[in-house]
Amino acid sequence: MTRRTISDEDGAIYEFTPDLEAIETVESDTELTIETRDSLDGAVQSDDDVIENVPDEVNAATGPIAVDGAEPGDVLAVQIEAIRLAENRGRVVTIDEFGLLDGFDEIEAPRTRTTPVVDGDEPTGDDDELLEDAESTIRFGDLEVPVDPVIGTIGVAPAGDSYTTLVPHDHGGNLDTTDVTAGNTVYFPVFQDGAMLAMGDCKAAMADGEMCGTGAEIATEIDVTLEVIDDPATAIERPLIETADAWKTVASAQTLEEACQLANLDLIELLSVAHGFDPTEAYMFSSLVGGLEISQVVDPLVTVRNAIPKTYLSTPF
Amino acid sequence: MTRRTISDEDGAIYEFTPDLEAIETVESDTELTIETRDSLDGAVQSDDDVIENVPDEVNAATGPIAVDGAEPGDVLAVQIEAIRLAENRGRVVTIDEFGLLDGFDEIEAPRTRTTPVVDGDEPTGDDDELLEDAESTIRFGDLEVPVDPVIGTIGVAPAGDSYTTLVPHDHGGNLDTTDVTAGNTVYFPVFQDGAMLAMGDCKAAMADGEMCGTGAEIATEIDVTLEVIDDPATAIERPLIETADAWKTVASAQTLEEACQLANLDLIELLSVAHGFDPTEAYMFSSLVGGLEISQVVDPLVTVRNAIPKTYLSTPF
Repeated sequence: MTRRTISDEDGAIYEFTPDLEAIETVESDTELTIETRDSLDGAVQSDDDVIENVPDEVNAATGPIAVDGAEPGDVLAVQIEAIRLAENRGRVVTIDEFGLLDGFDEIEAPRTRTTPVVDGDEPTGDDDELLEDAESTIRFGDLEVPVDPVIGTIGVAPAGDSYTTLVPHDHGGNLDTTDVTAGNTVYFPVFQDGAMLAMGDCKAAMADGEMCGTGAEIATEIDVTLEVIDDPATAIERPLIETADAWKTVASAQTLEEACQLANLDLIELLSVAHGFDPTEAYMFSSLVGGLEISQVVDPLVTVRNAIPKTYLSTPF
Repeated sequence: MTRRTISDEDGAIYEFTPDLEAIETVESDTELTIETRDSLDGAVQSDDDVIENVPDEVNAATGPIAVDGAEPGDVLAVQIEAIRLAENRGRVVTIDEFGLLDGFDEIEAPRTRTTPVVDGDEPTGDDDELLEDAESTIRFGDLEVPVDPVIGTIGVAPAGDSYTTLVPHDHGGNLDTTDVTAGNTVYFPVFQDGAMLAMGDCKAAMADGEMCGTGAEIATEIDVTLEVIDDPATAIERPLIETADAWKTVASAQTLEEACQLANLDLIELLSVAHGFDPTEAYMFSSLVGGLEISQVVDPLVTVRNAIPKTYLSTPF
């Protein structure tokens, strides 16, 4: 099967709306390569390029891609096979009125640090030669950080309200979650016909929390396989991530406390179905293994996940 | 060197105050075994024993133990070598007006589930025979969970204010942090002569978050070595944890957002000293690797940690 390529030049969105129009329509089980530009649309190429305010249009998400047969109530599985860097530098920025420590005197904003990609010992000079992520690092001052790419913004057309690509919510969007990475599968509730998947805003590396407001923002090529799960055994209201050894509910809300509650309630639902627990038993069990994890604390809504080892939860679908 | 044993029957506290009186005084580099009772003082032995309200006295912490020569400005290193279960059941409870989902209709409180300890295939019947944790599990309904003990409450005499053993703060206290476990070292700022260490409130297993308000609460024997670090190269204001591969700042506050800020500021300080970063550079770097982690979301103050791989931070002391 030939892998079809969809580029951000074919189409990209800055808002997830209920009535998105697809730039491509694919069958279920299609393998795609999706090209994404960096979250700042190439505006930062050196340490002198600073971002004064969060742009109105940020986190361009390549798409939307319609998947044939996806209907409200279905689940869209996005299996992430690889994320390759498509340029030879990332960029970390602080922006005024943005970030965990916004307003603290010791933090300077706006400010930029570009992070050259190092392949082996030497910085690569050729953007046209796509970088494999296996042995690469990015350089931050004298330090080198292994390349471990993350998709920051990924989602589907929402149910009713619209969300800019700066905002995470039940449809996905700006989840900024380190587990949205190669080897994992992200499951989205389908709210609209065709699901209307879009993704972008990748990072060469990112910490849980994304404290300063960005990771090392960078253009990429992403290999994914899309699959529609018709009539799923378990309905989901929010994204769910499958890693090699865990299932993770993902929830976004105004505060971390509220996001923790939603992520825990979603896990309680999954555990109850799997083990015949009543909600209180599932709640108690959730307090013993796995646990709450922070995705990001900087976007207009914050994002938390609740992990459970696969030992205790087989596929909900 | 003979390992000295200090039992909760020798003395235990329910409040960390600035003027604690030691039940034992030891030299630096002393190896101790510390016996702790369960957080609920043995009140729950079957599923019929429920806890209506959080008791006034909860989380008994064995001690205080004075360490000779520890003075304000020093650091006390508590190397945790082993945590053995000292009874054959734990207990998970919900309590009214306590826990992440307090007030949600679907959650029943008070309620209790005891978790028998299973050694191999059969529940052990003899409390007097201490259980090694290597191969043990606890049983929750039909599920078995590996025993992975955590010390819930551990701290030193605070600087000025007093804190019950239900509260975590800069002195430690009810940190409920899964990294406070065998193999790791916890570093505390010394606020008072002798440091005045006390610990208890152990769990046979606990998830990050401790969502229902408890792990599997259980009596234990803890092997530790205490060391005073005179004139540390880096002063710390809050606990710091060293794991096999990471350093983790630990901060407690009214909200998770505030705790994240404190844990990030502490890490920025450590990274700045180690690499000559200014605070903004350290902030940006912290946004690339490691990241924010949730300890607990249920105590009167909530607790967060910020991890950095040891690759980027050698010992601060």
